[in-house]
Parts: sequence; C-alpha cells; structure tokens
Amino acid sequence: MLTVIGIEGLPEIVPGDDLPALIAVTTDGRLEDGDILAVTSKIVSKAEGRLVAAADREDAITSQTVREVAARTAPDGRITRIVENPLGLVMAAAGVDASNVPEGFVLLLPEDPDASARAIAAAVRERSGLAIGVVVSDTFGRPWRAGQTDLAIGAAGVRVVEDLRGGRDDNGRDLQVTAAATADEVASAADLVKGKTSRMPLAVVRGLAHLVGPLDLPGARSIVRLGPLDMFRVGSEEAWREGYEAGLRAAATPVE
Amino acid sequence: MLTVIGIEGLPEIVPGDDLPALIAVTTDGRLEDGDILAVTSKIVSKAEGRLVAAADREDAITSQTVREVAARTAPDGRITRIVENPLGLVMAAAGVDASNVPEGFVLLLPEDPDASARAIAAAVRERSGLAIGVVVSDTFGRPWRAGQTDLAIGAAGVRVVEDLRGGRDDNGRDLQVTAAATADEVASAADLVKGKTSRMPLAVVRGLAHLVGPLDLPGARSIVRLGPLDMFRVGSEEAWREGYEAGLRAAATPVE
Repeated sequence: MLTVIGIEGLPEIVPGDDLPALIAVTTDGRLEDGDILAVTSKIVSKAEGRLVAAADREDAITSQTVREVAARTAPDGRITRIVENPLGLVMAAAGVDASNVPEGFVLLLPEDPDASARAIAAAVRERSGLAIGVVVSDTFGRPWRAGQTDLAIGAAGVRVVEDLRGGRDDNGRDLQVTAAATADEVASAADLVKGKTSRMPLAVVRGLAHLVGPLDLPGARSIVRLGPLDMFRVGSEEAWREGYEAGLRAAATPVE
Repeated sequence: MLTVIGIEGLPEIVPGDDLPALIAVTTDGRLEDGDILAVTSKIVSKAEGRLVAAADREDAITSQTVREVAARTAPDGRITRIVENPLGLVMAAAGVDASNVPEGFVLLLPEDPDASARAIAAAVRERSGLAIGVVVSDTFGRPWRAGQTDLAIGAAGVRVVEDLRGGRDDNGRDLQVTAAATADEVASAADLVKGKTSRMPLAVVRGLAHLVGPLDLPGARSIVRLGPLDMFRVGSEEAWREGYEAGLRAAATPVE
C-alpha cells in the first residue's frame, strides 16, 4: 500500500530561511522509517534566494538557457521556448516561474537541487533518526500529450530509477521494461495531493521503503539522458531548417 | 490523503474473459465512492484477444504503426522505433508487448482502451452502486529522461486533465501551469504499487473523488496532442534529412 499525505504547517518561505531545519521541525513526529518527502522546488528556490528582478521574463529564461531545443510562436503572439537548462532539464521557459512570487520578480530553479535534497534529507534524518528519502519536484509539459506532470529534479537517499534489467517475467523471458522511473512517479503521485493552488508544498510518500537508501545514491541529475541517445535533440522544425541549410550548401559545393 | 492499494485475487486473464465482470466481482466490497481503479492494459488486451502470433515482432509493430516518428539503431544492432500508433500514442514499439505473454506471441494494445475503461467502470458501478472511475495504463519511455513511467491510455468517469486555466495564484496572478495531467499521474502513482514483475494488474487509487464524474467525460484519447502544436513531429535526424533533401531540391530548381 502506498499513502501520500500532505504536510501542513510549514511557514511561508522567504530568502535566507533554513529550509532543511524548517522541514525537519515541521515533520517532527510525523514520519516513519522508509518515508519519502516530496518537496516542491518553488520553496527550495525561495529559501535559496533564487528570486530575480525581471522586467522581462524572457531575459531570465535566456540566462537559464544552455541550448534552445524548440521554439514556437502561437497565433496570439505568445512564444513557447523549450530549452535545456543548466541542470540538463529540457522544459518550457527553462523552469523560470512567475506564479506565486512577488510582483516584478521571477523564480529560478534551485542551483543544485540534488544538493538541496541531500541537505533536507540529512537534516530530517538527523532530527528524526529515521532513514527517509527526499525528492524535489517541478512541473513539466510533455511532447505529444496535453497537460503537465510533476517530475523529480532533485533527489537524495532514493533510488531514482529502479533497474529491472536482467529481470524475468512470469514465463522466464527478459522483461522489456528495463527501468521504472521511480522518483518521477513519486513526484507525480505527490502532485496529486499537493495540487497547484493550495499552500501545500510538502507531502510524505509512505510505502516505498525499498527505494530508500544511503544519501550518496545518484541524484535526479542521473535521470537526465541527453547526447547521442537523444532522438529529440531539437524540435522538428529546427532540425528541418538545419538540414535545409546543409542541403543548400552541399548543392553549392563543387564536386572535386 | 491519497492511498493506492493493490487488489489481489484476479484470476489469470485469458482471451474471451469478461474482464469487466471479473473486476466487478474481485473488487466487490473493497471500494469506496470516488475511488479510481487503475488497470494494467496488458490484462485488458489479453481479455480482448489481442494476442497475435509473431514470428517477427517487427511485423506486429509495423501493423500498429500509423507513422514512424523516430528510429535509431544501437551499436549492438537493436532497433528502437518510436511510432504513432492507431490510438495516437507516440511510444516505443507501438506498445507491442512480448513480456508475460505465451511464447511465440506478442500482445497488441486494446483496440479502444477508452471503451474498455467505460465497460469496466459501468460493470463496477452497477455491482457496487458507487461512483468510481477507471484508468487503463501502459508504460512509456520519455525523451530526455531515463526510465519509464505509466501513463493513461484509457479512462472512464475520470477528469483526465484538471484544467487550471483562469485560476489565480495566491498573489492573484494568472497561474502558469494550465492543466494537471491527472489521469497520467494516477497511472504513475498506481505503477509504484503494481510494479512490473508481480501479478498485480489492478490497484485502487483513493482520495481523488473530485476527479470522478460521469462515464461520458472525455477519455484518455483527449490527452493526445499531435498536429500543428506538436514541436516533435519527428525525430531530429528524420527532420534534418527531410530538410536536407528539400535543400538539395531547392538548389536544383531554376529560379524563374
């Protein structure tokens, strides 16, 4: 059985807050061994002072863009930019957030969400004496599907991917599913409770003790899969244009 | 609070089984108003006789391919084909499954998983007298991230996307997140309990009664978003090659 419980009682987070200590105090006496805490990245960013003044939200997005993956201008003129950010995350607007932040500011993602997760997990483990894990989550759109889901952008003390390779099905054949993206599924399950508009940035996911381990397990950064295996390096239009230019150049190059 | 409980007791499903009736009987007395049943697509396919003899799994994939989105040959010669299938789902191998099926066969996805979900929901509602929803789930890889998650390929009596447009954040500003992909998050939460190798194709997700509604709500097909809004119509290599050919042709065309 899996249980997801929203944790109330965390104060409004402001820059400079010791979030690990606040979470350790707020969860005191409410956790069990093997619990996973799901923390919305927004409060991590706020505590870490990732608010930046932004007369132009686009400037903030550009500052967080390692590489533009795809861009599209809607009929109403609104621009959607899917970019790779410094964390290796491919997401709309580089994860720059303008909702639930003070007017005139936008919020960047935490600089190192795996480190943030480790700090939270360490503080909660020390205070509670329990082996717990932490997932820091943010909201992502997806190609080919409407709507957004929460995924893990930081993790500590949690097996972020459950490797099933080498496993056998009930008939003794190789399993085709090779790796369950457990940290992402935990983030999605927690999102069903935390919701979007309520002041509920913290939830405990109970019943997955088999996924909880040492704090030095690979973090959420290890979920990123870019490079040669990436079949969607850039959007179709962008790749088409690259190819078109290459075709024009090739045609213009005299054969030796 | 959200609870996910694996439901044991369903017999091994074989072609011709009345799955809605079997699920209604198995869940009898174990459900509450507002529950959502998560059903692994594999047992739906098996009941509906979607087993096909497949000397060559590739033939089965081709038969389920409306459009090839991307293909890649790994150094070991293994081919990965990401295709759009007749359900509008973009997924590896068109959802054709060879694990946990009899030797010499592969399993296709249900022909109309929304209809399958409606039949299950209707049978359970009739027997139990409860307003419950049904999500039929399958396993998907994702661009840019390792591992797979479960998503909803069929749904009945469930708000598959929770539209938050027009909502305001706590400061009265427009919410940037416009729609939570609730049915997909339900499928992912259930997958954490159902796992991959255990005989647990059925789970109940409790605590989301606000998402449960009439049986004629839009199904999972409505989550599909292809066409003009799709920035990843084909893989980067495929789009690049299309563009390259177009560039060569353009260069060869005399200017009038």
